[in-house]
Amino acid sequence: VAVTSHDVARLAGVSQATVSRALRDDARVTAATRRRVRDAAATLGYVPSELGRGLSTRTTRRVALVVELHNTLYHQLMAPIHDELAARGYRMSLLAERDDASVTDRLLDRSVDGAILMTTRLGDALPEELGRRGLPFVFLNRLGSLGTVPSASADNVGGAEAAGALLFGAGHRNIGVILGPADTSTSRDREAGYRRAFAAADAPWPAAAVVRGEFDHAGGRAGVRELFARSSPPTAVLCANDHIAIGALSEAAERGMRVPDDLAVVGFDDIDMAAWPAFRLTTVHNPLMEMAARAAAILLDGIEHPGSPAEHVVFPTSVVLRATHG
Amino acid sequence: VAVTSHDVARLAGVSQATVSRALRDDARVTAATRRRVRDAAATLGYVPSELGRGLSTRTTRRVALVVELHNTLYHQLMAPIHDELAARGYRMSLLAERDDASVTDRLLDRSVDGAILMTTRLGDALPEELGRRGLPFVFLNRLGSLGTVPSASADNVGGAEAAGALLFGAGHRNIGVILGPADTSTSRDREAGYRRAFAAADAPWPAAAVVRGEFDHAGGRAGVRELFARSSPPTAVLCANDHIAIGALSEAAERGMRVPDDLAVVGFDDIDMAAWPAFRLTTVHNPLMEMAARAAAILLDGIEHPGSPAEHVVFPTSVVLRATHG
Repeated sequence: VAVTSHDVARLAGVSQATVSRALRDDARVTAATRRRVRDAAATLGYVPSELGRGLSTRTTRRVALVVELHNTLYHQLMAPIHDELAARGYRMSLLAERDDASVTDRLLDRSVDGAILMTTRLGDALPEELGRRGLPFVFLNRLGSLGTVPSASADNVGGAEAAGALLFGAGHRNIGVILGPADTSTSRDREAGYRRAFAAADAPWPAAAVVRGEFDHAGGRAGVRELFARSSPPTAVLCANDHIAIGALSEAAERGMRVPDDLAVVGFDDIDMAAWPAFRLTTVHNPLMEMAARAAAILLDGIEHPGSPAEHVVFPTSVVLRATHG
Repeated sequence: VAVTSHDVARLAGVSQATVSRALRDDARVTAATRRRVRDAAATLGYVPSELGRGLSTRTTRRVALVVELHNTLYHQLMAPIHDELAARGYRMSLLAERDDASVTDRLLDRSVDGAILMTTRLGDALPEELGRRGLPFVFLNRLGSLGTVPSASADNVGGAEAAGALLFGAGHRNIGVILGPADTSTSRDREAGYRRAFAAADAPWPAAAVVRGEFDHAGGRAGVRELFARSSPPTAVLCANDHIAIGALSEAAERGMRVPDDLAVVGFDDIDMAAWPAFRLTTVHNPLMEMAARAAAILLDGIEHPGSPAEHVVFPTSVVLRATHG
């Protein structure tokens, strides 16, 4: 027979309403009574129903993380988000974008108090719809088109400009660029930074040596193949993220090219793998873990204090010199 | 003003109870009425509350995936699990083991209909507790100590034996072994397979050349360092998973050793990265994607048909020859 809050109330000598308040740390219950109720619940092995709690508080204390499941970056960000949520008594639900149209419904059926969007495309309808329906959310790493939405992101323009300046400083003049999808703010802003570096070096933007693909290993391999099928292949390549850069290293190895002597490669993000001896990738450090924890904190602040102004945090980036820039 | 099921009922010309049945595809409502209700809901922008649905059906249609967040293998398994659940109308919640004691409470507070455990340690109390409290669950990849629990796993013993036989067949006699944590069924069973290969080759188990660490890149690097600090370093190393093996390749590169000439390396799992040109890792293919989808299916069958016998599916494994076995 399942233990109910009635049993706990009887053992603790309080009302059922007090049991439910005590177990969610409601300040209207004294600390001593809360302790007595907790002890009674532990003795009986009572676990309050989440459904019942949701009905009485009208909140779910659950936050959705909306991701593309094939995007490997979010894997690294999940731990800091989870820990920030857990520390404040929230749980994490995962919603995958492959759900397509149903993502909106699944966010709006009152199963979550808010959402963290980290794989937003610039044209996505989702942010506007969530704003219209009043569900709190935050942009993490990638920004959407709505400026009024709170966000945690990196200085992508500054970081990319520094990466470009590094290659020009090393004497490269024939520099290729491998970008990510055009409808992501990260690729857009990193391209803007690369363009600044070309302008600062008085070099024309090398339209014939700029290619674009997915933000992944295959995108990097295809990018190098494409650049080397052209008439004057580059001596260095700026890659809009580390997965692209590591794919570029793979393709260079396939072709028997030495890095950095035959081809210099610079990435962006500084994922764990970039430091592995097999890669030693020179890249731009993007403080992903801090950014993810901050996004979670910003969202919870918005949920708990509706109407507060949208916070936009932009984390500084820095170049990490390893072995691939030449 | 929020749209309610009352508004939908009025527009569709049916009762509120029919609206709620129609929207969860209850067979007691005719297809024509279900369509009419759906159209009315779409017209009004009505999204049924998950809380209300949970109360009326006493189910949550939500399944928890219990993982260690630093374990990188689960990332690859999340997409097939998500898709299998979504196809059957379930959502995925993520519970991290770093929640410690609270994981049990979070599984038992009726917020989920069942759980997929994929990072179980052999001594864990959680499986027994879930069994005692009647929450359906399934072991994925790693098995717990309870034989009565449904599971989807790989033939770890057979795969590891084949990996060992490959190295003996290539002429190696001085073979080292880098295992994972002793309290995981995967490390235990892969060790058993390696032992069989040694026995089949009439070679004694090389206790002095067997080291153990975490199932990760750092574990592989430390393992090679340890083996090469000993008096007679091996010419080949069996690694209990691919992350260990790729760490071993990293450490070999650090020491200027050529693979496979100076050191042959064989992994286990065949993760995506194993096929990258930088690694070309010879390994044992573990059909992780099929296994993950099957685990989800087994769990949902158990949830929807309580009392059915526990299903144990063991997927065959096979050696994938690439460039590191010599």
